Amino acid sequence: MALSKKPVTGMKDILPAEMQVRDYVIGLIQETYKSFGFSHIETPCMENISNLSSKQGGENEKLIFKVLKRGEKLHIPEAQTEADVVDCGMRYDLTVPLSRYYSNNSAQLPAPFKALQMGNVWRADRPQRGRFRQFMQCDIDILGDASCLAEIELMSATTTLLGKLGFSGFKVCFNDRRVLKAMAAYSGFAEKDYDQVFIILDKMDKIGMEGVAAELSENGFAGDAVETYMGLFAELEQAPDSLAYLEKKLDGVVAGGVIAGMRTIIGSVRATASCEFSLVFDPTLVRGMSYYTGSIFEIKMEELGGSVAGGGRYDEMIGKFTGMDTPACGFSIGFERIITILMEKGFQVPQSGARKAYLIEKGMPAETMVKVLAEAKKEREAGIQVLVSNMNKNKKFQKEQLQKEGYGEFREFYKDFQ
Amino acid sequence: MALSKKPVTGMKDILPAEMQVRDYVIGLIQETYKSFGFSHIETPCMENISNLSSKQGGENEKLIFKVLKRGEKLHIPEAQTEADVVDCGMRYDLTVPLSRYYSNNSAQLPAPFKALQMGNVWRADRPQRGRFRQFMQCDIDILGDASCLAEIELMSATTTLLGKLGFSGFKVCFNDRRVLKAMAAYSGFAEKDYDQVFIILDKMDKIGMEGVAAELSENGFAGDAVETYMGLFAELEQAPDSLAYLEKKLDGVVAGGVIAGMRTIIGSVRATASCEFSLVFDPTLVRGMSYYTGSIFEIKMEELGGSVAGGGRYDEMIGKFTGMDTPACGFSIGFERIITILMEKGFQVPQSGARKAYLIEKGMPAETMVKVLAEAKKEREAGIQVLVSNMNKNKKFQKEQLQKEGYGEFREFYKDFQ
Repeated sequence: MALSKKPVTGMKDILPAEMQVRDYVIGLIQETYKSFGFSHIETPCMENISNLSSKQGGENEKLIFKVLKRGEKLHIPEAQTEADVVDCGMRYDLTVPLSRYYSNNSAQLPAPFKALQMGNVWRADRPQRGRFRQFMQCDIDILGDASCLAEIELMSATTTLLGKLGFSGFKVCFNDRRVLKAMAAYSGFAEKDYDQVFIILDKMDKIGMEGVAAELSENGFAGDAVETYMGLFAELEQAPDSLAYLEKKLDGVVAGGVIAGMRTIIGSVRATASCEFSLVFDPTLVRGMSYYTGSIFEIKMEELGGSVAGGGRYDEMIGKFTGMDTPACGFSIGFERIITILMEKGFQVPQSGARKAYLIEKGMPAETMVKVLAEAKKEREAGIQVLVSNMNKNKKFQKEQLQKEGYGEFREFYKDFQ
Repeated sequence: MALSKKPVTGMKDILPAEMQVRDYVIGLIQETYKSFGFSHIETPCMENISNLSSKQGGENEKLIFKVLKRGEKLHIPEAQTEADVVDCGMRYDLTVPLSRYYSNNSAQLPAPFKALQMGNVWRADRPQRGRFRQFMQCDIDILGDASCLAEIELMSATTTLLGKLGFSGFKVCFNDRRVLKAMAAYSGFAEKDYDQVFIILDKMDKIGMEGVAAELSENGFAGDAVETYMGLFAELEQAPDSLAYLEKKLDGVVAGGVIAGMRTIIGSVRATASCEFSLVFDPTLVRGMSYYTGSIFEIKMEELGGSVAGGGRYDEMIGKFTGMDTPACGFSIGFERIITILMEKGFQVPQSGARKAYLIEKGMPAETMVKVLAEAKKEREAGIQVLVSNMNKNKKFQKEQLQKEGYGEFREFYKDFQ
């Protein structure tokens, strides 16, 4: 069979110029998150298929790249379903693997545990421009802390990082699943319908208040409930202090302390902000993943028309592995989106030192070449990046190419070099 | 189905202590190889199955983790063989993907191209202590340079790196497939038998000269050939200058310039060494991969009883993709082995700054917590790693745990903090 030059459909080769930006951003992520006390960890890229298909991953579970059983365990001619031939799969996020990791290793980890993960995930999405089937995710999570200090640290760390990357004026939207549910309960929706209601609510920024009201009615929800629900959102828009309004309105419906906690989180993150951004309570923020149990948040950037980071509290997932609930809260930045924005902006990685290219005449005697190499050694030890290369026939073109790679200085060495 | 806490068989979770060492080594690899002008690149972790099964990968092709086709392309009940249900697989090395990458992108890359790759590879090996089914490889390759400058730069860069990691006294063994073949030809072995002869020769350090001679005879090779062959090795051991001996002996059998090139490589690398090691011509060095076409090399460390790095020239692989031969030479370090040695040695990562842990009394009012967080912000901006955590009931145990994580200083904040 002929060999194919192209990468696997939907995946991409990364060229040196992009790789420089990625390495720079990865370095900044490590430095920033470590300064907040997060520990870098890693899990394997594959997980047992039962863990990936445990309904924790929502829609992503439909997109798993599955791995074939091997050796004696594989019987293809008799196989009827995927389950007969598959034993593991590629991870589609870093949250399910982290929960398994914590269950497996918690005895050796501090409590609470602050984890930083950077790694590839795989999703067999329909290939489209700018979206790939292998992409990097970058998550921070705090496990074992039920207090709102977890949310504050996650938001402070993430906004600090975005600031260091040169972004400002972005918007951190904040909500709580318990408030979402209380607003639905107050309006008279049945608990079994919440998910459907929230899917429609999630369209607010596209179809507006009237659109949401219309779609709720079309889906057969009672007029009373829809009216009360939309009334809440309308009044929230007018309220001078929307959290105070809800605290009063939902008294007895939402658990005590939930709204006070939100106020603490918003106040603390604002007061210690290290770059310019807005942090707002957004009662229409839903976040797709069904595993969220408390606060949910998302960072939006105008220049992108989309989200560059998202996260929330998922206090019940680790219990699925251990049988014992562990509070957990995480924030994931859209690494690939950030790289795309930086590349489009023409972002230049700050150079840490000079770059020189040595061009050597072909056929140079070995004794002379040693002298050139000794020179290169000396300069490299002094922190200079030195490329040693044979001189091409078209020296001018060679230099132009090397200039594109950032080589600003050239030295030419001929056979008579002393 | 119950969720499993363990990672996939043969793969491992990486704890924070090991991850610190890995991150440190990765940083040093990048810094060192970049100073030699290598550009960091990345390919997807999956490749089309036809590329992985092209006989370039030798024995590793038997160990591929294969990925199931998805959606409409998959028909399990009718499938008879793996080929019916599989379209790609996990890479088992970084060399086949690099060749594909170069074929796909060479128009956008400088010539020659010096590539640095660090990434996971997967092999469904029989699980055993210290060997994993997912592991990191770290390769440097020079593409488009047929001269021995490529070998010199690869060896200098790799030995410089090992020196920076604190290793010394290691042994770089060096040979050339063309010398290996010429010695076999000179002895009268048929070309079709070379691979079998080399597999037996490869056992020299385990079974010795007599063992090799006996096994060659047992395998039915002519007594004359075996005798001549073993005679060459015996005389090489005695020769004061083994390359000069071979140059004379193999005159007309080995291509002109091959041995002179080896002498240049050995001389140049020795003369510009940046740490203490020995570099020797080893006529028994074989290296398993059939794709090697010229020089081959391997670094051995006494304290390991094994190889920590290996590589060679593979001038014909890229032509399999492009139809046009491109000279290529690479060196791969055994990243996981190096990490294992460092961990066993109790290697401590040099700390770049102080680490402080702030412990906060539970129930602290929001206004007070903001003051503590502002304090943390100030210290973080000054380059200190600050962990902010709620105070646990058992404060003494909490501090002991944090000390293990490298936190040397503690600050306690109570509700009355001003």
